[in-house]
Amino acid sequence: MNDRFATTVARPRMLIMSNAIEAMVKPSPEEFDIVRLDDGGADRDAFLREVGAGLEVVLCSGGERLDAARLDLLPDLKLIAVVAAGMAGIDLDHAARRGIAVTNAGGLNSGDVAEFAVTMMLAHRRDIVAADRWVRDDEWVERRMPVGRSVSGERVGVVGLGHIGDGIARRIAPFVSEVRWWGPRAKPEIPWAREGSILDLARWSTTLFIAARGDDSSRGLVTAEIIDALGPEGLIVNVARGFVIDEPAMIAALKTGRLGGAALDVFEEEPARAADWADVPNLLMAPHVAGATREAFARVFANALDNIRRHFAGQPLVNRVI
Amino acid sequence: MNDRFATTVARPRMLIMSNAIEAMVKPSPEEFDIVRLDDGGADRDAFLREVGAGLEVVLCSGGERLDAARLDLLPDLKLIAVVAAGMAGIDLDHAARRGIAVTNAGGLNSGDVAEFAVTMMLAHRRDIVAADRWVRDDEWVERRMPVGRSVSGERVGVVGLGHIGDGIARRIAPFVSEVRWWGPRAKPEIPWAREGSILDLARWSTTLFIAARGDDSSRGLVTAEIIDALGPEGLIVNVARGFVIDEPAMIAALKTGRLGGAALDVFEEEPARAADWADVPNLLMAPHVAGATREAFARVFANALDNIRRHFAGQPLVNRVI
Repeated sequence: MNDRFATTVARPRMLIMSNAIEAMVKPSPEEFDIVRLDDGGADRDAFLREVGAGLEVVLCSGGERLDAARLDLLPDLKLIAVVAAGMAGIDLDHAARRGIAVTNAGGLNSGDVAEFAVTMMLAHRRDIVAADRWVRDDEWVERRMPVGRSVSGERVGVVGLGHIGDGIARRIAPFVSEVRWWGPRAKPEIPWAREGSILDLARWSTTLFIAARGDDSSRGLVTAEIIDALGPEGLIVNVARGFVIDEPAMIAALKTGRLGGAALDVFEEEPARAADWADVPNLLMAPHVAGATREAFARVFANALDNIRRHFAGQPLVNRVI
Repeated sequence: MNDRFATTVARPRMLIMSNAIEAMVKPSPEEFDIVRLDDGGADRDAFLREVGAGLEVVLCSGGERLDAARLDLLPDLKLIAVVAAGMAGIDLDHAARRGIAVTNAGGLNSGDVAEFAVTMMLAHRRDIVAADRWVRDDEWVERRMPVGRSVSGERVGVVGLGHIGDGIARRIAPFVSEVRWWGPRAKPEIPWAREGSILDLARWSTTLFIAARGDDSSRGLVTAEIIDALGPEGLIVNVARGFVIDEPAMIAALKTGRLGGAALDVFEEEPARAADWADVPNLLMAPHVAGATREAFARVFANALDNIRRHFAGQPLVNRVI
């Protein structure tokens, strides 16, 4: 009876660009009429030409090919719902020309990224990896671990006070002496003091969080001079993009002790290769996982489905890119 | 000239119980007239009998023997300044009878302990040790790390809301959904809700911090029933004392997955032996270092010297035990 009911009600129809995406997002076949690109056989474009008429919505990861030619196989397309921040596969200019809306996951994991950035700072300063190893390697039976340091006296600088930077500032404030920030635009409503430049901020800071936007505007933003301004007890925490920091300069500063430490979730080349970092001291690393939590993914997937529902209900979209 | 000046001014005289303590605390010989027990030759008691008259102050680690017989070799003793929380070597009852004041380091590192407890929770939940290993072992080149979890939805329970527990609550609050606590005495001025019992708190919590006083009153406080109430996703963080938790019950619950994880800075037997914990899953360990920071030690040493100065200036003592 459920089946008969389901077939007699017009369900919103959507194209899903891979079975992997469907397995993650799990749209209900009772709610949606799902067209699967992976059912399209060898010639996917021929398949799209066949099923394209009337298809208003595409659900994708942002990496699959959705160039101009392919978008034009979908003449009625109105919405591309992307379950990631990156949209490298999509011809956004063409989508804009066609009046196709695009929504993505940008910012939906900013709390998780901020949380991870602060966790990396604390774990680095309190030597969590070494402490765990100290017990597991039975060093403790031989002698006490060297005395560590507290973050209580730290002056924390945050580069970029978007959602992530603000989340970092709010979380670390109860731990440390003071929080300041720098970003290209003044934000009068912000309770933290803004330094005049990123160099001034680095000179003042004992720990510098990099939470700048990871695009061409921030490439090489953290120069050798800024790294040296942090000094031999200074710590850099990067959760933006690897290319925001002059990586060779940072590595050189760590090796000579001119920079105290680095906690890195992002790298100029990803995946980072262990051999490239093996002889760099005072380093805590993570494989670009700051935003990869089940809570963030649930939020991203729910947001994509919600936007599809909103499209069919004629409601405004959330997290719209174009 | 400095020397002549130094010898003509009466400097406060103090006995230091070991050269190790002097090397850490570094009292200035220009400020203090220092008598060193380690200069006392083979028969330390004979030495004390010889130098004891007029000695008003002892500086010690709390572990050196200062029993009744020895205290009575120092007839003019007025203050024992201890640079630790523990005072196992001192006959406190006899000191009290004699009217000797004792000051220690209790509570002077509570902020550092709270900071470390929160760091351990975050590092455990965000898999910091595994993340660092993932990059260093080149796992990242093969595949992405499994999706983790955020602490944003956590309900955090704090057992014991003294200086350490309060410090934990204030630091973790911006990260999580809600903070509650339990302790034997209600504290009306506290902003966090108090549960009716530790078991109620464990049932409500996703992470339970143990910050109870580490004395006989808290021995075995965290029972098997409380551990099971936390459940398969629950986390215990212990920075109190190992014996506060039923350790065999906790290990059994971790091994069977009835408890999600544990982050332990303290153990029933210390130093903990790696072999005893090697097959216990979901465990982050540290070698009892939560309060061992250079900032805390500096505070403790400064406090001891300050109390000695206060004694000779006739001012009230700080952190007085008796």
